Amino acid sequence: MNDRAASRALLAGPIEVVHLGIDSVARAPEASGARVARVPFLPPAGGDAARIAALRALLSEPLGPAIDAANERALARLLESRPRLVGIGVARETIPGMADDLFLHAGPPVAWERMCGPMRGAVIGGLLFERRAKSAAEAERIAAAGGVRFEPCHEHRAVGPMAGLVTPSMPVWIVEDGEGAGRGNRAFSTLNEGLGKVLRYGAFSEDVIARLRYLSDDLAPLLADALAARGPIDLKALLAQALQMGDEGHNRNRAATSLLFRELAPAIVRAAADRERAARALAFIHGNDHFFLNLSMPAAKCMLLAAEGETLSSMVSVMARNGTDFGIRLASMPGRWFTAPAETVRGLYFPGFGEGDANADIGDSSITETAGFGGFAMAAAPAIVQFVGGSAEDALQTTRAMRRIAIGANGAFAIPALGFAGTPVGIDIRKVEERNLLPTINTGIAHREPGIGQVGAGLVRPPWKCFHDALLAFAEHCAARREETRRS
Amino acid sequence: MNDRAASRALLAGPIEVVHLGIDSVARAPEASGARVARVPFLPPAGGDAARIAALRALLSEPLGPAIDAANERALARLLESRPRLVGIGVARETIPGMADDLFLHAGPPVAWERMCGPMRGAVIGGLLFERRAKSAAEAERIAAAGGVRFEPCHEHRAVGPMAGLVTPSMPVWIVEDGEGAGRGNRAFSTLNEGLGKVLRYGAFSEDVIARLRYLSDDLAPLLADALAARGPIDLKALLAQALQMGDEGHNRNRAATSLLFRELAPAIVRAAADRERAARALAFIHGNDHFFLNLSMPAAKCMLLAAEGETLSSMVSVMARNGTDFGIRLASMPGRWFTAPAETVRGLYFPGFGEGDANADIGDSSITETAGFGGFAMAAAPAIVQFVGGSAEDALQTTRAMRRIAIGANGAFAIPALGFAGTPVGIDIRKVEERNLLPTINTGIAHREPGIGQVGAGLVRPPWKCFHDALLAFAEHCAARREETRRS
Repeated sequence: MNDRAASRALLAGPIEVVHLGIDSVARAPEASGARVARVPFLPPAGGDAARIAALRALLSEPLGPAIDAANERALARLLESRPRLVGIGVARETIPGMADDLFLHAGPPVAWERMCGPMRGAVIGGLLFERRAKSAAEAERIAAAGGVRFEPCHEHRAVGPMAGLVTPSMPVWIVEDGEGAGRGNRAFSTLNEGLGKVLRYGAFSEDVIARLRYLSDDLAPLLADALAARGPIDLKALLAQALQMGDEGHNRNRAATSLLFRELAPAIVRAAADRERAARALAFIHGNDHFFLNLSMPAAKCMLLAAEGETLSSMVSVMARNGTDFGIRLASMPGRWFTAPAETVRGLYFPGFGEGDANADIGDSSITETAGFGGFAMAAAPAIVQFVGGSAEDALQTTRAMRRIAIGANGAFAIPALGFAGTPVGIDIRKVEERNLLPTINTGIAHREPGIGQVGAGLVRPPWKCFHDALLAFAEHCAARREETRRS
Repeated sequence: MNDRAASRALLAGPIEVVHLGIDSVARAPEASGARVARVPFLPPAGGDAARIAALRALLSEPLGPAIDAANERALARLLESRPRLVGIGVARETIPGMADDLFLHAGPPVAWERMCGPMRGAVIGGLLFERRAKSAAEAERIAAAGGVRFEPCHEHRAVGPMAGLVTPSMPVWIVEDGEGAGRGNRAFSTLNEGLGKVLRYGAFSEDVIARLRYLSDDLAPLLADALAARGPIDLKALLAQALQMGDEGHNRNRAATSLLFRELAPAIVRAAADRERAARALAFIHGNDHFFLNLSMPAAKCMLLAAEGETLSSMVSVMARNGTDFGIRLASMPGRWFTAPAETVRGLYFPGFGEGDANADIGDSSITETAGFGGFAMAAAPAIVQFVGGSAEDALQTTRAMRRIAIGANGAFAIPALGFAGTPVGIDIRKVEERNLLPTINTGIAHREPGIGQVGAGLVRPPWKCFHDALLAFAEHCAARREETRRS
């Protein structure tokens, strides 16, 4: 067919248009009766002129290749990291910068006045646990009067799920990087309390405080003795196995908890003079399939600490939420938060609860996605859709989508259902903006009132503003570094 | 185009033929230069006239619907079965029909003279363990002189992996059906020794015997106490969880072993007065990812015992190998073996070993495939291909293929990677013959000499003869039952 014949053939039948781009262009054929299928489309960086300019500078010569190289180095350091569980200590004596009047919390900085319900509930519980208040009312007065200081866990190399509260007397896992550039780095997390009414979801009733006392007075010293006798446990190897056993390391930790239990049990038994004490410790860990979450989180933190400090890297090294704000930090500017109001989690609710009960997105557990598992490894854990909603195919699609914003793949975290491909790892803020695609986080949902607890689980994305602000700041930061280099 | 034009168009270019059917038909176009793609094809029942006639009778009115109905009842009973671990006993006192001069073995009946190397090795080890011989040479003399009787495990409701040897003093798990038609049925298996040089692979050195003594004198009594205090463990629920955690219940048991370990550990600790004894027990179980195999097997046996006795069912209720012969039994004729020489396993070998070292297919562990997991659930355990060979996609394909010969699906054993579809369950001997498709079994490979042990793992199929003979016998059996019904 020549061009004329082709045009005739095209116009012979009813006109059908597939449209991608500026919306007004589609209106003319639509008005004249054509069927128009609109393909969702956004120009890079959501079409914002300032961000497009910043993105162009960050992707093209000379800066683009320099950032690529920095990202490769940062990723290599992350992949080389080998977090190991080495012990348990008391927060006051173990966490750098911890003080008697200091409470650590999840997410970016937040003052008592702006704290959400579950975070306030956890603070009340913390004051009761520390015996600084005799009632919830007294605890609230102390907190409101500035009787305790608040700082983010992340500013002390700690990570906490949900409210993420760490008070001075709490026991904390000590996870230490055993290899590579981050060797010797330590990260910290409290012990996981279990499900239901627990401090991290904002509950502070007597049974919650009694459980915290069991953890600090009985379980933690026993685990410390057991670990000292047994020696370190390789958490990277354990996570790699768990990803072959249906876990993704954030909302599904049954396999990792089981493998950890096997590693610890003989040592726990040898460490406990009293067999009932050993049996109670084992039964407590056995009773909580999320026990490993508070180890997968500091393991992720160790990996990302190793990546931090690459001054031209566009890798995200922290994503964290305090239930009011979502905050991210970059490996190149690890001291600076980019925050925005936290989003609502979409998911499945426990019987009797619904979206109206939900607090906004909360917790440091998104460190797992930041390190390239959790939501990024959902393909490894299709059974998780029974918990967060969706189909098994959605789980595969989530991991495939995350490849589009990742710097590379973690071959050590192979996913059987994807032909043993490595999990996508290292969020490149440039790719997020260029492809208009945010990281997927899978997470628990807390009740918005203090004192209640978990009401569901689901999927959530960070607010765009964190990434938009970080992109512009990173562009400035890179320009300043170049200027420095030019002058020196 | 009319017919003439169509013919002309067809013959205008080079001729390409897709051929399915009698081979000689393809030779003419091939001889005249046509490209011929042969599609592998076999008529039902391999084209054998006697089997085709039998199959026709078994599939058509009036027998076909009666068999379908019997299979549905048998399957319902299998699916209703709920095997529970209820205790541990000594074989002599626990297994029905066990006697002081009786050794049980895997597979169909076999005399000492026809026993393969690993089976002989296990018998030697059994005589040393029972202190009936002081040396391997003495043990061989005793066995050859008829100093001990041999019977199949399956004839005593027991199942044993590989050589499957059960001697009178060995401890055995007691698995009891807790629900449905099979309620109260019991099945038995020894405790799994671990990997490497072990009795079930034909090894009988001092360390092998010492381990057997530890199992019988120390671990088993402790586990018996622990189980008595704790109460029964629901093996069906545990298997269902494990299939969501990368196990298939035959060659991959890491998840199930971990979950069992968690269930048992607190009770073990409470049962042991001496903490070192408890720690050793936990360390032994922790050291063996196949510990659960010897529970998944009697669990499968319980399920199939529930299905047996449906006089018109074409379901296979036993597939078992003694390393010399492969044998199957049908739910409708549970007392009768159909045997043929066992096949060679295709798979991956440990370093230093190859096909020349391999014994033929051996063990009762194919009871797992018979009950609808193991090879039938390979899609649940893609990581297993690293052990038996192939790709993750092969694992999915195996499960899909087994649907073609299965009576139904087990919704309790849902496979995440197949959108939570149930595993295919209940082998219909008619479908095997009609579709020329044998069950896939995944299995370990034993060295063919006594005393060495495991040399690899892989996939294997039963010999066709077992199914051919069983089909013809089943057709006769059904005709006889009809005759009986007509007369009465």
